[in-house]
Amino acid sequence: MKEAVEIEQPLSSTQRAVVVEKGESSRSRYVAPGLNRGISIIDLVLRLVALVGTLGSAIAMGTTNETLPFFTQFIQFRAEYNDLPSFTFFVIANSVVCTYLVLSIPLAIVHVIRSSARHSRLILIFFDTAMLALLTAGASAAAAIVYLAHKGNVRANWFAICQQFNSFCERISGSLIGSFAAIVVMILLIFLSSFALIRH
Amino acid sequence: MKEAVEIEQPLSSTQRAVVVEKGESSRSRYVAPGLNRGISIIDLVLRLVALVGTLGSAIAMGTTNETLPFFTQFIQFRAEYNDLPSFTFFVIANSVVCTYLVLSIPLAIVHVIRSSARHSRLILIFFDTAMLALLTAGASAAAAIVYLAHKGNVRANWFAICQQFNSFCERISGSLIGSFAAIVVMILLIFLSSFALIRH
Repeated sequence: MKEAVEIEQPLSSTQRAVVVEKGESSRSRYVAPGLNRGISIIDLVLRLVALVGTLGSAIAMGTTNETLPFFTQFIQFRAEYNDLPSFTFFVIANSVVCTYLVLSIPLAIVHVIRSSARHSRLILIFFDTAMLALLTAGASAAAAIVYLAHKGNVRANWFAICQQFNSFCERISGSLIGSFAAIVVMILLIFLSSFALIRH
Repeated sequence: MKEAVEIEQPLSSTQRAVVVEKGESSRSRYVAPGLNRGISIIDLVLRLVALVGTLGSAIAMGTTNETLPFFTQFIQFRAEYNDLPSFTFFVIANSVVCTYLVLSIPLAIVHVIRSSARHSRLILIFFDTAMLALLTAGASAAAAIVYLAHKGNVRANWFAICQQFNSFCERISGSLIGSFAAIVVMILLIFLSSFALIRH
């Protein structure tokens, strides 16, 4: 329904010359720079929040271990995050997303300065989406195992290990929080970037 | 590369008047309707693919059960998907995403017809992102438990149940495929919608 509109906006010949010279910047004519700059600043702040969340989660999970005060002649009872592959994946996923967020911050700063950028926003949306999927996968796999550690499963004969490893379990449960907070923040990031795109 | 185009299209004074009246619609001058329509059609097809994937996963997981041919006086050995909360979550997540995809198809068809729509695309991006997170969470939690069922975990004393419930395990492993395929498709969907937005 908008095709008819294409013919608009008369330009004087001077203006035409300017347009030809400026090239791409002529696209940003309809931008309300103030609002887009505001969005870019919120984007930057949210990235920092997600960064702290994933970093905290990775460190909290990665440094968790508990050694029980009793042991037999052969076995010392000790729980570490890398006893369970899901927790290893959780730490890796959080580290990768954290690294990505660090790398994306310079681009986010560029968006604050040049708030009419579009192609770089599209690139960020794509990587944000991929990283959201990775982070969600890691957090969710770890959450499934944490649930199992707390409750066990009668039908599969899997016992709740949290009765023995109490502080280990509290620590791994807590480390999920940062990750799930980062998931919510990343959904907001993708929405904000799309909203900035629509304003052109 | 399309900037040069905008200085073309001389306007008669009548056309100018039309422009002034129409106001906001003048934004869409840079649209190439053909390309955006192509994107909308791909979007629609991908939605159908994701729909089939999630529906297949939900049905495959939801109808899985295995009764072992031997039993004691008190217990019959029987495995069903809802013995494990993660699998229940998997079925629910896939059903919700499948329902959402069905509901989003009319809007996708509208985008094929009115390929310059923008606000409705933004709404789709937001819900697509939320559904991507839900679907990934479900698939990943189920995958963590499937892995455990196959391999068990020596440190936590959880035994591999797949040695007994062989066909049950094969079925639940297979049902993950549709879900993970749908995740990839939904990442593409979000990227395509953003790409359509940028073309304005």
